[in-house]
Amino acid sequence: MIVTVTLNAALDITYRTPALVPHTTHRVSDVAERPGGKGLNVARVLSALGHETVVTGFAGGRTGDVLRELLGNSGPGGSRGRPVDALVPISGSTRRTLAVVDETSGDTTQLNEPGPTVSAAEWSAFLGAYERLLTGADAVALCGSLPPGIHVGAYAELIRRARAAGVPALLDTSGEPLRRGVAARPDLVKPNTDELARLTGSREPLRAAHDARRRGAHAVIASLGPDGILAVTPDGVWQATPPAPVKGNPTGAGDSAVAGLLSGLVERLPWPARLARAVALATATVLAPAAGEFDAEAYEELLPRVAVTEQPGP
Amino acid sequence: MIVTVTLNAALDITYRTPALVPHTTHRVSDVAERPGGKGLNVARVLSALGHETVVTGFAGGRTGDVLRELLGNSGPGGSRGRPVDALVPISGSTRRTLAVVDETSGDTTQLNEPGPTVSAAEWSAFLGAYERLLTGADAVALCGSLPPGIHVGAYAELIRRARAAGVPALLDTSGEPLRRGVAARPDLVKPNTDELARLTGSREPLRAAHDARRRGAHAVIASLGPDGILAVTPDGVWQATPPAPVKGNPTGAGDSAVAGLLSGLVERLPWPARLARAVALATATVLAPAAGEFDAEAYEELLPRVAVTEQPGP
Repeated sequence: MIVTVTLNAALDITYRTPALVPHTTHRVSDVAERPGGKGLNVARVLSALGHETVVTGFAGGRTGDVLRELLGNSGPGGSRGRPVDALVPISGSTRRTLAVVDETSGDTTQLNEPGPTVSAAEWSAFLGAYERLLTGADAVALCGSLPPGIHVGAYAELIRRARAAGVPALLDTSGEPLRRGVAARPDLVKPNTDELARLTGSREPLRAAHDARRRGAHAVIASLGPDGILAVTPDGVWQATPPAPVKGNPTGAGDSAVAGLLSGLVERLPWPARLARAVALATATVLAPAAGEFDAEAYEELLPRVAVTEQPGP
Repeated sequence: MIVTVTLNAALDITYRTPALVPHTTHRVSDVAERPGGKGLNVARVLSALGHETVVTGFAGGRTGDVLRELLGNSGPGGSRGRPVDALVPISGSTRRTLAVVDETSGDTTQLNEPGPTVSAAEWSAFLGAYERLLTGADAVALCGSLPPGIHVGAYAELIRRARAAGVPALLDTSGEPLRRGVAARPDLVKPNTDELARLTGSREPLRAAHDARRRGAHAVIASLGPDGILAVTPDGVWQATPPAPVKGNPTGAGDSAVAGLLSGLVERLPWPARLARAVALATATVLAPAAGEFDAEAYEELLPRVAVTEQPGP
């Protein structure tokens, strides 16, 4: 079983409108809602790949209720093919994120609420639930931003507890929570080049990834956007590249890559196979019509065509 | 008791963000929610003026739950100083409206969801509730747009039923629902100059207001924005003007004017006093820091200074 942690889960709302013109009034033509936050996206892809997955983190208020309803473990078929909901209730209200899609240009304007303040008691309740989940977990993914009230070393603490329980941990966050988390020696981190540069001061991905390993990360998988991913691991250095550039919506591509990496880790695939899966899933996510979903047919078709090349060692 | 009808009630959400730049990502610095839709705004002002007020219309889904919670009749003090909630439940979800306030310019970008589709059975349930409320009503206000599923002659039907019950009806809507409603002979309509022009083809307010009376409205109160209001009634023609131009947020000013007109009608004030109240309330709403609220002190100070001048008859 794979656990994904989303401390700042969100209800992702998408509005479609003919054209977004600031300081005017718009009639929204279509409204869509789905559970959001990086860890929930990762879990959805893991479930689609056939992995038993449990989501935890926080949910609260009316928005939290909607999010849990949409996670939908209660309908016919139970949790088959869907992540199991182990979110911890909080008194604050889960945040919303709003994507306004301009139907003329296809561009998206994003507005993200800050999220609820989590109390010390709620954080303690979460730690208890997390410890219980670790006892049955094959791997854990720690994903996204921290809500107000959660201390900046929270991910470092969760990584230490995972290590104590013998569960491999993947960290996908940014800024100070990433810096602190890396120092707690996670098995995997998956920064993009901006996040790596902020962490290490270097915009050169290979150099920055080596630096991040020296800071504590066991393996660093740097996402290079359309150029694929660069993996700096104890077993070698690889770059994995999609067969051809694709056009589409990159929202959620990084989360699909995380799902590819984690599923490959749990299945004990060799690094090149894990990286090919991550890149094929990310590319199939860019190609999917709905943001954050992946195109399963495109994934199968892309997988054997991802180029994975070993790079000279340091 | 005054009844206000809001068939397309809304949860009004306000986001504050440093600057709205299309096709980028924004962190929202502040989120506020309040019950919205014209009839609910009118009711809030009527309650603040000391009138017993009942709100009806539709509410449904999680957003409807939040709206009803915020209407807040359940807390200590009961409904004192607050409208009584007589909203009719529906299976669809109440719409949201989103105002994004750009903190740099102070300008607002508005995104309005279309609203839930109301079924024929839900409309019938509403008509039953409406008939029961009419038996105890001194006046009724019919406000705002129609949600999907409600026939365009809905306001005309509600006006006919009010007339049959001997209850004066005020109509504040636009487009075809206004055209049909005027033909059903409401006691008052409160269009702005754009709405009047669409109804009558004339952009000359005095001419257009006379035309609207010929089409069926007993009295026409045309809002002229910062220039106040023009009233064309069976008893005479007046213009009421604020003492000086004011700067601020005009959101809800029209709804406050409706509350002024209705309260004056129920209190049997002469026309000039009703019009002065409507203009003072609208102006005090523009001056209030929160959109849609009115500044009670400014209202008291403005009221004796509104100029009401009788115009030559037709």
